[in-house]
Parts: sequence; C-alpha cells; structure tokens
Amino acid sequence: MEKPDRFRSISPLDHRYWLANRDLFEALADHLDEQASVRYAVRVELALLIELLHRLPGCSCDEQLERDIRAAAARVTADAVAAEERVTEHNVRALVNVLQRELPASVRHLVHVGATSFDITDTATALRYRDALRNVIVPLLIRLERALIDLAEREADTAQVGRTHGQHASPVTFGLAMAEYVARLGKAIVRISGRAGDLRGKLSGAVGAYNATSLLVDDALELERAVLRRLDLKPSESSTQIVEPEYLLAALLEVGTAFGIMANLADDLRQLQRSEIDEVREPFGSRQVGSSTMPQKRNPWNCEHVKSLWKTFAPRVLTFYLDQVSEHQRDLTNSASARFVPEFVAGFAAAANRLLRVVEGLQVNRDRMSERLRDGTSDLVMAEAAYVLLAASGSADAHEQMRRLTLECEKRGVRLLDAARADQATWECLERAVQARFATTALDFFSHPERYVGQAAAKTRALAARYRGLMDGLERAPGRGDA
Amino acid sequence: MEKPDRFRSISPLDHRYWLANRDLFEALADHLDEQASVRYAVRVELALLIELLHRLPGCSCDEQLERDIRAAAARVTADAVAAEERVTEHNVRALVNVLQRELPASVRHLVHVGATSFDITDTATALRYRDALRNVIVPLLIRLERALIDLAEREADTAQVGRTHGQHASPVTFGLAMAEYVARLGKAIVRISGRAGDLRGKLSGAVGAYNATSLLVDDALELERAVLRRLDLKPSESSTQIVEPEYLLAALLEVGTAFGIMANLADDLRQLQRSEIDEVREPFGSRQVGSSTMPQKRNPWNCEHVKSLWKTFAPRVLTFYLDQVSEHQRDLTNSASARFVPEFVAGFAAAANRLLRVVEGLQVNRDRMSERLRDGTSDLVMAEAAYVLLAASGSADAHEQMRRLTLECEKRGVRLLDAARADQATWECLERAVQARFATTALDFFSHPERYVGQAAAKTRALAARYRGLMDGLERAPGRGDA
Amino acid sequence: MEKPDRFRSISPLDHRYWLANRDLFEALADHLDEQASVRYAVRVELALLIELLHRLPGCSCDEQLERDIRAAAARVTADAVAAEERVTEHNVRALVNVLQRELPASVRHLVHVGATSFDITDTATALRYRDALRNVIVPLLIRLERALIDLAEREADTAQVGRTHGQHASPVTFGLAMAEYVARLGKAIVRISGRAGDLRGKLSGAVGAYNATSLLVDDALELERAVLRRLDLKPSESSTQIVEPEYLLAALLEVGTAFGIMANLADDLRQLQRSEIDEVREPFGSRQVGSSTMPQKRNPWNCEHVKSLWKTFAPRVLTFYLDQVSEHQRDLTNSASARFVPEFVAGFAAAANRLLRVVEGLQVNRDRMSERLRDGTSDLVMAEAAYVLLAASGSADAHEQMRRLTLECEKRGVRLLDAARADQATWECLERAVQARFATTALDFFSHPERYVGQAAAKTRALAARYRGLMDGLERAPGRGDA
Amino acid sequence: MEKPDRFRSISPLDHRYWLANRDLFEALADHLDEQASVRYAVRVELALLIELLHRLPGCSCDEQLERDIRAAAARVTADAVAAEERVTEHNVRALVNVLQRELPASVRHLVHVGATSFDITDTATALRYRDALRNVIVPLLIRLERALIDLAEREADTAQVGRTHGQHASPVTFGLAMAEYVARLGKAIVRISGRAGDLRGKLSGAVGAYNATSLLVDDALELERAVLRRLDLKPSESSTQIVEPEYLLAALLEVGTAFGIMANLADDLRQLQRSEIDEVREPFGSRQVGSSTMPQKRNPWNCEHVKSLWKTFAPRVLTFYLDQVSEHQRDLTNSASARFVPEFVAGFAAAANRLLRVVEGLQVNRDRMSERLRDGTSDLVMAEAAYVLLAASGSADAHEQMRRLTLECEKRGVRLLDAARADQATWECLERAVQARFATTALDFFSHPERYVGQAAAKTRALAARYRGLMDGLERAPGRGDA
Repeated sequence: MEKPDRFRSISPLDHRYWLANRDLFEALADHLDEQASVRYAVRVELALLIELLHRLPGCSCDEQLERDIRAAAARVTADAVAAEERVTEHNVRALVNVLQRELPASVRHLVHVGATSFDITDTATALRYRDALRNVIVPLLIRLERALIDLAEREADTAQVGRTHGQHASPVTFGLAMAEYVARLGKAIVRISGRAGDLRGKLSGAVGAYNATSLLVDDALELERAVLRRLDLKPSESSTQIVEPEYLLAALLEVGTAFGIMANLADDLRQLQRSEIDEVREPFGSRQVGSSTMPQKRNPWNCEHVKSLWKTFAPRVLTFYLDQVSEHQRDLTNSASARFVPEFVAGFAAAANRLLRVVEGLQVNRDRMSERLRDGTSDLVMAEAAYVLLAASGSADAHEQMRRLTLECEKRGVRLLDAARADQATWECLERAVQARFATTALDFFSHPERYVGQAAAKTRALAARYRGLMDGLERAPGRGDA
Repeated sequence: MEKPDRFRSISPLDHRYWLANRDLFEALADHLDEQASVRYAVRVELALLIELLHRLPGCSCDEQLERDIRAAAARVTADAVAAEERVTEHNVRALVNVLQRELPASVRHLVHVGATSFDITDTATALRYRDALRNVIVPLLIRLERALIDLAEREADTAQVGRTHGQHASPVTFGLAMAEYVARLGKAIVRISGRAGDLRGKLSGAVGAYNATSLLVDDALELERAVLRRLDLKPSESSTQIVEPEYLLAALLEVGTAFGIMANLADDLRQLQRSEIDEVREPFGSRQVGSSTMPQKRNPWNCEHVKSLWKTFAPRVLTFYLDQVSEHQRDLTNSASARFVPEFVAGFAAAANRLLRVVEGLQVNRDRMSERLRDGTSDLVMAEAAYVLLAASGSADAHEQMRRLTLECEKRGVRLLDAARADQATWECLERAVQARFATTALDFFSHPERYVGQAAAKTRALAARYRGLMDGLERAPGRGDA
Repeated sequence: MEKPDRFRSISPLDHRYWLANRDLFEALADHLDEQASVRYAVRVELALLIELLHRLPGCSCDEQLERDIRAAAARVTADAVAAEERVTEHNVRALVNVLQRELPASVRHLVHVGATSFDITDTATALRYRDALRNVIVPLLIRLERALIDLAEREADTAQVGRTHGQHASPVTFGLAMAEYVARLGKAIVRISGRAGDLRGKLSGAVGAYNATSLLVDDALELERAVLRRLDLKPSESSTQIVEPEYLLAALLEVGTAFGIMANLADDLRQLQRSEIDEVREPFGSRQVGSSTMPQKRNPWNCEHVKSLWKTFAPRVLTFYLDQVSEHQRDLTNSASARFVPEFVAGFAAAANRLLRVVEGLQVNRDRMSERLRDGTSDLVMAEAAYVLLAASGSADAHEQMRRLTLECEKRGVRLLDAARADQATWECLERAVQARFATTALDFFSHPERYVGQAAAKTRALAARYRGLMDGLERAPGRGDA
Repeated sequence: MEKPDRFRSISPLDHRYWLANRDLFEALADHLDEQASVRYAVRVELALLIELLHRLPGCSCDEQLERDIRAAAARVTADAVAAEERVTEHNVRALVNVLQRELPASVRHLVHVGATSFDITDTATALRYRDALRNVIVPLLIRLERALIDLAEREADTAQVGRTHGQHASPVTFGLAMAEYVARLGKAIVRISGRAGDLRGKLSGAVGAYNATSLLVDDALELERAVLRRLDLKPSESSTQIVEPEYLLAALLEVGTAFGIMANLADDLRQLQRSEIDEVREPFGSRQVGSSTMPQKRNPWNCEHVKSLWKTFAPRVLTFYLDQVSEHQRDLTNSASARFVPEFVAGFAAAANRLLRVVEGLQVNRDRMSERLRDGTSDLVMAEAAYVLLAASGSADAHEQMRRLTLECEKRGVRLLDAARADQATWECLERAVQARFATTALDFFSHPERYVGQAAAKTRALAARYRGLMDGLERAPGRGDA
C-alpha cells in the first residue's frame, strides 16, 4: 500500500484532526478504518466457517484445525483484498477469494457458503460500531462527564447571575448551570451505551429468506443465532439482504443528541468568555497566539471549535435517515454513504476530546461572578422576589406594579431596593412577608441577590451524585444502558 | 376571531391535507392548534393554583372552590388571550391576566405565582404532545400495523422474485417482504409510545433554581412533583427556564424513524406498480383520472404522496436538533421553531393515513408474481442454489463456475437448468446433493424456483404473531412502550 | 367552503404569524394560497385556449369571444374545483371540467387540448412565485435594505469596539457593521429579483416531446412560446412532463441565502443587547411584558424570533434539492412537497418583516459604544497599531513583543499606553512612526482608540450610496437583476 | 511527516475513493489538501510583501529580491508550519514565523504586516477553490457533458416508451431523455464556472475597517486591490475579519445543484436496468462479480454509487448555510466546518467521474426499447393521440370517452386500436382527423406508436448543438460563465 504524507489527505479528519487527537484517532481507527473493515469481516467469515464445520454432515472442527484456520486468516491483508478487488470489482468476493487461498485446502470450499456479502458486511459493521462506541466513545464521554461532575460540585455554591435571552434574570449558581449538562449528557451516554449494545448481525442470506442456508441445515434461524453467538451478537429481527437500518440509525441519532448537548455547553462557555462578561476562561498557552495582528487576543477557540464541528456533523444525520429507504430486498444506494459513518463518529470524538480539555482546564472567575450580583449598581434581579412575595401576600397586580417600578429604576438610575423602600405600603408588605418566611429583614434579604438562588446548590449536588453513580455502573458493565 | 375560508391558508396542512384527512386532523387539532395551546396552558395554571391553595398558609381549596375555579377557567378563550397579548406582547402574561379576570377574587392573586411562563408552556407542551401521540398517532399507526400484519399473513406463501439492486435475485414471498415492514414499523410504534409516555413538565422557575417557589414553600421540588402529579406528568431532571430539549427531541426522532420506514414501504409498493412489473396496484376509483391528457393512466399517486411528504418533513428533524442549543438559562430562539412541531406531527399523520388506505386496499397480483418465477424463460435465480450445493459438496470454485455458466446462459439465451444438465459432472454432483438433502430429483428441484423460498413463510407468520401481540399490549396499556 | 376559526389551524403561519403580519400575508396569499392556485391555473388555460382559437383551422377568437371566455373563467371557484376533484381525484382534470361547464359551448372542446396537467400547473407555479417574489418579497426586502442604509449612514462615524470571537478587537464604527449587511443583503435582493424574473413555463406535453401539440400545429415549439408570451413568460429549455426543477430551486436557494444574512444580522443585534453590552435595544412597548415572573425583563425577542424562524426554515432547502430527482419523464414524489414551498416564502417574509421593525426602531446607545473605547480601563485594542508601527519600522518580532506586553498589562492591570511608555526604546520608535505618518504625537494617538477606525466611515458611505442606487434601479425596473 | 498506510484513514475519500479516482484526486489535492493550504497561503503572503516593498517609504523590490523572496518561500513546508503551530497554537502566525526565518533579513519584518490571518486564509481559500473548480471540476464536468451530448445525438431517433409515475406514457426518444440532462447539467456547468470566477479575496484587516493598512498607506482600499490583482482576484465588497460567506456559498450551492442533476440521471439509468425493463446496461467487467452468493447478478452498482454519494453530500449544504452566521466582526465557529469543504468537492468529483464511466460505456438496448412500443400487446400509449384528435374535432368529452375505452381495453385485454375501430363513429372521426393532418390513414397512424414522438428528435439535436457550443466556449475561456 502506498504511504503518502498524512497531509496528502482530503479530509481534515485524516490530517489536522488526526494529529490533534492522535491517540484517540488511532483507537478509533482500530475499529473503523479500512484495515479494520477487512479484519472484522474475516472474523465473521471465520465464525460462519467454524460453525459450518461443526454442523455439516461429514465435517468437523477440532482445536488444531481452528488454530490453523485462525492463523491462516491472520495473513489476510487489506492490501491483498484491494488487489483482488481490482479483478472481481466486488469487495466481499475479493475477500473470500483471498481468504480461500490462505486456508487449509480441506475447508476452503466452505468459506462464505450460505452467506451473502451483507451477512458478512453488516455483521462486521455491527461489531465495529459496537466496539468503537463501547471501547472508545463511551469511555471518552465518561471522562468528560466526570470532569463536568467535578466542576459542578466544585462550583455548587458559586452564585452567578442567571441569564435568559442574554438578559440578567434571577440568580443561579454556576454549579447548577454545569449540573444541567451533567444530567443531559449523562442520559445521552447511557443511551449511546445501550444502543451500541443492541446493534445486530444477520445470516439470512441474499434476500432475507434463508434460501441458501436452508439448503445446508434444517433450522436456518438456529444457524444464524449460533454464528452470531460466536461474535456475541444477536440476529436482527427482519433483515432483507441487509440488517434493517434502524438499529444503527438509533445509535447514531443518540450520538447526534449528545453532540447537540456538547454544542450547547461549548456555546455557553464561549459566551461567558466575552470581554464584557469574562466569567470563565478556557486554558490558553503562555506562548499561544490569539491573532496574527492583534497581540492582545485570547480567543475561546476551543469552544468555537466544538460548535463548528457540530455545525459540520449535525446535518449528516439526514443521510442516516435517507438510508432507511432501500428498494425491495435492498439496493446499493446506501453503500457509499455507509462508508462515511466513521467520519461522523470521529468528528464527534474530536469535539468531545476538545471539550474535555476545556472543562478540565476551565478557569472560573468566581469574583467576577459574585461581583456582578453584589456590586450594588443594579439589583433588578430581585424584582421577581418582590413580586412573588407581594402576590403571595394577596396583591393581584403585583407583577404589573413591580414592572412599572423597574422601568422607573432604569429611567432614574436608582436601585430597586431604594425605589421599593420609597414606597411605604409596598415595603411594609415585603417586610412582613420576609420576616414571616425567613429569619431576617427585608433590607437584608433584598441586599443579597447572591443568596436568592433557590435550590441551586442542593440540586447540583444531587445530580452530581446520581450521575457519578450511573457512570460507575456503566464502567462496571460496559455496553449496558437503555436501548 | 376572523373566519376565513379554509383555502385562505398558507400551509397545505390547513387546506388540502386538512380536507383530505378531516377526522384525523380535527382530532390532532384538539391537541395541537392554538386553541388547544390555550386550553392546556390553563390546565397547568389550575394545577398550580389548586396545589398552592392546598399548601400556602392561610389558603385552602374545598370542592366547591375547585368547581368554581374550573368553571371560571373554562371561560378563557384563545380570542381573549390574543386580544390581551396585543397589550402585553407576552402570550403567557396575557393568559394570566385573562384568567385572573375570570377567577373568584379570593384566589386571583395566586394565579401563576411562583411560576415562570415556561413552567406553564413547556408543561402544557408535554401534555399536548403526549396526548396527541397517545390518542391519535399511536392508534393510527396500530391500524396501519394491523393492516400490514393481515397483508403479510395473507401473502405468507405467495412466492415472488426477490429483487436486489433492481435485479432478480433469489425468491422470497410477498408476505415476507411485508413482514419486514411489520417488524420495523412495529418496533417504531412501541418506541413512539414509550417516548410519548416520558415527556416531562417542570416547575423550577425562571432559571431552573426554584428561586420563586422557594419563597413560598420549604420543599420546592416536592411542590413541582405535586403539581405535575395532578397532570399525570413527572418533572424533567434538569430544567433551566425550559425543560431540557432531549425528551421531546427523542420522541420526534422516533416519529422521524417511523416516517422513513413508511417512505420505504411506499417506495417499494410504488415500484411494484411499474408497468413492466405490475405485481400490486393501489386502489383506483372507477371515475378517477390518472392524467389530464393520457386517458389510460392509473398512477401510484398515493405511494408517491407518502414519499413526497417524507421528503418534505425528513429534513425538519434538523430544526429539532438545532433547538438543543439555547444560551445559558435559555434564549428564545427555539420559540418560533417550536410552534412548527405540530406541522411535523400532522404531516406524518397525513402520510400514515394515506399509506393505511393503500395497504388496506392493495390488490396483489399473485398470478403475475408466480408467473415471473415459473415462466421458464429464465431460471437464473436458481444459480445460488446450484453454487451452494456444489460448494457444500466440496467445490472451492463453485461460485466462479456458476458465474461463467450464467454468463453463457445469457449470451446464448438458454435456461440454467438446461445448461447445467449439459455439463454431466456438475449435474451428477447436483443430483447427489439434492437427493441427499431433499426427497426429490435435481430436475424437480431446479424446475421450481417458486419453492426455493427458504424460511420465508414461517418467518412471516412468526413476525405477524409477535407484532399482533405487541399491538394488543399497547392497546391495553396505552402510553407504555420502550422509552 | 367551511369557515373555521383561524386558530383552528395546524401551521402557525395560518394563525399566529398570519395575525402578526396580516397585510403582508394577505398580499402573499393572493399569489400563494389555494384560491390563487386555481386562479393562476385558469389564466394559463385561457392563454392556451385563446392561442388555439387563433391558430387552429376553422377557429377564431374576436374580442367579444375573448371577453366572454374571460367572464366565464372568472366564475370558476376553488370550491367548485374541490368538489369536482372528489369525483376525478385529479385536480387539473377537475379544473378543466369545471371550466368547460362555464365556457361557451363553441369553445368548450378546446379547453386544455394539447396540454398535460403540468403544462398548466408548472406554468402557473412560475407565475405565482414570480409575482409573489416581485410584488411582495422584493419590495419588502427593499424596505428593509433602505432602513439598513439609513441606519448605516446615521452611524457611519459612531466608533464601536470591534469584536472577533466575542473578544474586543480593533475598533470599527457601528455604521460599518451595518453597511456590511447592506452589501450582503443588497446583493441577495438583486439575485432574488433576477431569479424571479427567470422562472419558466412549459407547453411540451405529457413527456416533454410535444406529442399532442404536434397533432395540432406544425411548429409546436412556436406554439409553446406564443402561449407563454401571453403570460410574459419564457419556455423552460428542456422540460419533461415538468419544468426542470433548477429554475425554481435557484430562486429558493437565493431566498435561503438572504434568510441566512438576516439571521446573522438578528443574531448580532441580539448579542449587542446583552445586559453586559447593552449597545443597542430593539423597540419595546411601554406596556409590554418581558417575563411573566421577572418584571424587569426587556428581552430581544424580535431578534430571537428572526433567528428562530431561520432555524425552522433553513433545513427545508434540502427538500428543494431532494425534489431535483424525479424518475424518467417524472414521478409525482415532488407533488406534496411542492405544495409546501409557500410556507418557506411566508416564513421568510415573516422574518424580514420582523427584522424591518427592529431596524427601523433600533435604539443605538452611542454613549455606551464610545465609553467602552474611551473609558481608559483598557486600551489593549491599540496593541495592533503598536505592533504594526513597530514592524513597519523594522522590528521583525514586534508581534511577539507586543503580545508579551499585553499579557503583562493584563496581569498587572495597567494600561497599554502606560506600559509602552515605560519601555523607552519602544516608545521612541512609536513616537517617530506616529509623527512621520500623522500630524500628532504617540501619546495623542494611543490615547484615542475611538479614532483608530481606518476607513470605516468612508467605506460605510460608499456602500450606502451604491446600494441606494441599486435599490432605486430595482424599483424602476422590477423583476430585473442578476439571474 | 508520518507516512501511514492509506488504509489507515477515517474518511473513505482518503482510501477507497482516492484509490478509485487516483488521478482525479491527486489533481484535486494539489489545490485542496493541507500542503496546498500552506502553499497558497504563502503565495498570498508574498503578494502582500512584494506590494508593500513597492509602496512603503524607504522600501523597494527589484527582480533579484523578488526571486530571492520566492526561492525562500518555496522552502516553507507544511511540516515546518505544523511544528511551529505546536508552539503558537495559531496556524497563520506559525506560517508567518516559519516564512520569516527563511526570508532575507532585510524584508523579514514586513511579512504579514497590515494583514490579519484571515486576509491570508480567505484569500488563499478563494484561490484554492477557484483553481480546483476551474482546473479540475469544470473540465471533468465538460467531459461528462460531452459524453452525454454524444449519447443524446446517437439516440436522437431511438423511440422509447415515456414513463411518468413509472407507468407507460406517451412515447419519447431515448436521445431526448438524455438531452434533457444535457441542458440541465450544461447550465449548471456554466454557473459553476461563473461562480468560481467570482470568488473574492480581502485585505481589510482584523475587523474589516482597514485599521492596520491605514497606518501604512494613504489609500488602503487601493492597496487591497493591488495585492489581490497580483493574484488575479478582486476584493470582496464588505468583508469583516472574513470575506462575506456568500461568494463561496453560491459556488457550493451550484455544485450541489449539479450533484442533484447527476443523481437524477444516475437514478434514471439505474431504474432502466431493472430486470423487467432492461433497456440500458452500464459496463460490467467479464471477470466482475455481482453478488458473492448469486452468480447471475450484474448490478447497476455504478449508478447506485452515484446516488449514494449524493445522499451523503446533499445534506452538507446546510453546513454552508449555517456558516453564514458569524457573530459581529466574526467568530471562529466556521473554522473547523470550512476545513470540510474539500470533502464536498471531492465527493462530487468522485460521483461525476463514476457517472462519466457509466455514460461513456452505456449499452443501449434499442431493440428492447422499440419492441416495447411495437409489440402489439398494448397500444394504450396512443390514447392521448386519439383523445386530442377527437377533442380538436369538436368533442368536449373526448377525454372521458377514451378513459372509459382504455379501462375496457384493460379489462377485456384488447388493443386500443381494435377497440377504437369497433366504435364506428369514433373511428370515422379519427380517420378524418388523421387524414386531414397527416398523409396517412388512421390505421397506419395508430399502428405505429414509435412514430408518435412529437419533436423529440429535433429538440434533441438542437439542445446537443447548443451545449456543444457552450462547452467549446467555456474551454476557450475558462472561468467564464454566469456568476
């Protein structure tokens, strides 16, 4: 095989992002590159061959023969298959021919017998994605989830102004803001793991009717189960020439869902790094350059990168949906498109890896966060508390009353606290309400927006604990989860 | 409210497809139109109000008061809310104002207290889609599934040439071809039902921290659970101002999956109606016109319609994914887009309804199907059987041997059976293999491609039975399924 | 026709957004609703009928007959066609039947003769979209463009900090920021106008070979041109049963491009309204409510709305692409999907209308903008100027030198000006460079970031003038532009 | 740089499809891979440097210096830049640093001065795509177009049954069916060429205001024009930090349009290869295998491949649209996504190349085509002719009359000709009409459906001639076309 420079590639996944995620991409490629494609297909052919040797009249397979078969199979290379494919112009027949040449003469004739190409290819595909998801993607996501859990717990009590529509709203804690991602991403991880564990193989032949295997054995469905059992897979329920697309589709849609959650997190962290907000910063190297012309720039480029990858890959789920349609017992219009699925998985992995780096190294500017709530120039975020206390005290137009008051505050540049105190009836009502409910005065209560955070800290800790437990469980029993 | 002509609409869902699916769309609109939107929001406000009356100090709610409240609420109309919104330019505040005016003075001040708009809106949304999916979509899909099951069983033994890549392949039965859709669609129905049952509400306030409700009660999370329990909903796990988008996203992705399966089925049936194939026909009215200029035309327009709707709606899943990203405690860039979700559900329903009509009225031309396998002009579909029998008998290059033979047959225009018999060694080998395995001769075996259908009939019946059972279960316990 | 409540609709385009854009949607509906669909189809049928009367042997058409024909045609209603379609299940044949009944007996037999349904439908479609784009969409966009031009000119000199990656960068003027949208949107308007003017009709018959019309006249292509000339249209170049999809596709893709530009503008204005930035505000009514629980909220809801509509409609361009594929002389799988194109146009119009309101009423906080550049707490945005002046003076590592200096400034909290002056060699070099190039001192130069705006004002004015001229031209010659 | 096996790649573009399109992909990679990215960026830096040397006071650039500069620049490698980027974590600054090291000391300090990274990157991008489209894509498409033109002319007179909705419709010629693609694809080629020629560069600095270059020269816009003139480019009209996205977007949308046309053609040819239709065959090698288990299979795998690639890439246009939105003077969320554009171009090229092979080697079964029209078992395709002749003769219900007759024919299995002759009044009317218009009898006319092809042949030849001329023009003046 030719050995070109890695930069001699069309896809940035094969140069720039490979180099930026070397270990990760090597691990993925072990399941998803063209060599893996051949290697996994050979595994499936062997499972079939050995099962046939056990079952066909006049055949058998002792341990020695099995060892010989496996040794022979190990000699099959992607290069040799590619060379043979230039003759057959059919990739699985090429693989079968190459494999036959390597195998002991006594078993050669049984290679692939009873199978159609996609019995092999789709079963290998199920194995490849199951392994890539279970061995690479889910562990990577668990690392990201744990980093998020740690961050959320660490900042559980860090008051921060809440922001809706980009406007200051009621306060939260930064920990709660992160805990919300803990829960969303955590659920997605469990789902991806479950879907990966539910990928299916097939041995139902050229049109899904077990025509060929029914020539060989009495119970062709049992043969299918037995061959797949050797690969720790179950048969799909209603294959035609191909496994029905919904098993893989479901797994990929869940990956797409996790991608959207990561994009949301990256976008939030990116916005919190705006010059005017500056509440968090992603790691930035001491020799790193932000702009080739503006020396002062430290850009949130990692968060931007994650969002950009999401914009690249999110639309691709449509191809997965389009590939649900295959005419009759199948057409081949999902063949090229299916070969691009590894790009989707790798692009997702690159984004997760980058986000992991951001979360692990995130600098949280707690002072800036609390200052924003405490600086006294504006306490309008307490308007909700005033309205609710007034309403609960019996005022039906409390909202409108406070709305006008806040407009007044804005126009005259005064604090809500001062404006409220200026209105004696209102203030007395608030005083009564606060004292009845909390052991403090209205003045104290309204002077501390940073304490008006509801159940933020408690909920943060509860979510962190729950998802730490779920991740522990997934690590103990990989491949489990909700399918 | 103005009452325009239904044709005075922009969306074909509101004119052409409404009229074509009147009962169905009326049922959907009961959950999904603007009136329903108001009605459901009022239900949520009432649940909150009544729960507050039970819990707040100095408040109470006896049966009479509850009746009065419900009666007052029933007087709230979409028109009145729209009129008020022209003042507030805020739809939920408008609803609250209108509701307050109707309610007894004694409870008026407690309306909406503690809640943010999206506590109401997102909870109402969960209810609306849960009900629309459970009460309208799933029952419609079950009808379609049952029609498919009946068709599959009816045609379980109807031999049909298998088609891969549009080329004649090994035989199947038409029942099996339909049973594959039974399984695929059946799984999707179970999933949709499960996802519908897992839609969630919220009462965590403006930023998800329970700031406001914590002013009212000690355990704000318990209040959330209690209010939602009144609506038979559970709280979402980590809401901000809004319910995290993945619950609804998951349900819509499953609807998208079912849509793809229906598109595949419609496309298959469409192709089987080609003039040259003509194996099935969709119902065509005796006075119906196929073309305004070609009087002979009977077009597969219903199947085309289903596929066309799918092309319309499949790309829209991307909007659902894009709406995962909402800044910080939320921005409003999912607001308009969310209002278009009913279009997706209605478009899907229109397609399902049309496909139901096709499946229920499908004319299957069994003679044409079997003729195609039996007419004797070509028996090349038996080449697989010959290759497998030869290979299992020990020939390592059986595939290549048969490949050449079929090329020869094509070139010389002879039958495979005759060509094979002309090669004495081959024929003897086949004779031995057939006789060893089946109680017949090679001549008999190869003369009957229509019998070479593997496990087609048995698998068809097994799938039909399994999914009939699953549908029975869903009907007994609606809303269940795999979430 | 039934007259349901407008709220009894599935699509928000037919209730909420119709009501919010009443005049605009009425104008659109005059071209795009189901009544318009019938009306335009009748126009095409008449053009054909009258042309045939002029050309066929033994026929003629004087002015009186033409008046009678037009009067008869005016009596055809969408209701009557819908009723007839319940018999024919074919919409164009239904229209033909209804039209025949209304027409004078002497011409009745010639209605539709030579045409296939899609000669009528696709020609009517070209007319409808041409008119909707030319008469409604382009004028609306020109209003928006003019509002942007005015805004850009008004703020041509308003210095504002530039923002790249959300970080403060070199300064611009707010006028330039708007002028960039003037140019981008302006080009899109010219393109949309041009594409609208290049929509095409057809009269090539059932399969595009002019089979039927060749039975009637000698030069069937000339007949096609003549009929279309009556409608001010040209024939498409290579129709099958349908006009080749690329004419309309191109127009819709340009609409999609303009939509993206508007989304970008809306997003910019939205972000500039963040509490921490607060440089612009969209109009907010004095009685308007921002949040049902947080009385102080004034949200950028109009900008959010525009972006949300864009997220709704952007993915739909894929359907237009998918509809390029139609089998052989056509299949009908673009039929339902084509009926949804009016939604795309209306959704775009709703967004443009809302953005127009924002731009026309935008409050620009010039003080805040200039304060941000002049407040003296940070002048890091001048780091580029220092680097460039040093480099141009011969320093090859000026960028790295300034990069370190800005890090130092950040760490120690000092101004760049002060840090630079502390380094004597550097400062002398800058002093020389500034004095050589500008008639001022380095101190003066670096003390005024708001003057470091390059060609911002001049370019703003040039773009404003250029696009004002282009819009004038479009209004004088509607439908022109670059096709 | 590491030299891995080509199979050690994630993207099939870098292994399977590279190997299948080696010359084409090498040519593309010369413009689009990471090495080209560096090479083109260096070209832009040099244009700026040399222009500055000519313009800045105290600088100059004679031929020798320019040669030295070019020689130095030629020593910059992608490897060296990648190594430096590991320090700067900024790719353009890395390139500048490496370039500075190579250049003569006397000019080193002026490298990149006045520019921001994206002045270089976006200008290089415009050059890369312009060259890739002009030098590789358009010539490839012209080859495809010429092959189609030849095919269309060759088959201009080959009668074929028309097919609408998959049903037999009025006849066409196969040449006309191909000529329709000639016209559609031809127009797209002209458009792609035009858009490629309208890609733009920029030198407006970090925020589009020419801040930095205004420090260096009096007329910064003239400097921009001069630098770009050295690269045969024009400046974009309203760049911020980046070239406004619509220039490249427009080019890519046109590529997407051409892709859809190719998918349509591939799909048509694929369906025409169905076993039951068998009117064309794509080339199939004598040793090629169609199925690993069904030896008789010759699948339309090349056409399937083209459609599959289209399904892969069509959704990606959405990313191009999403990248229109960049905050303020730009954010970086289009950075990773932009790196994937070469995939789109390469995927399109692979599809065009495969389709070229199909069209060049297409076997047309003229006998089968004509037989289908002439075999006498059904002449229902003449129903249109009968209806039109009757209608033109004055019968207002001719369509309904013929519709009933064709139903009758179908039911009783008789030919239309015979059924029509059995109805004396009808037949006499047809006889008169045929004789009046053509010099033959009704019997002769209705016995020859293959002659009822309207203007098919003439139109085919006219389109072929027109597009041959357009392609000649494009080759004489590459890069021209309608922008």
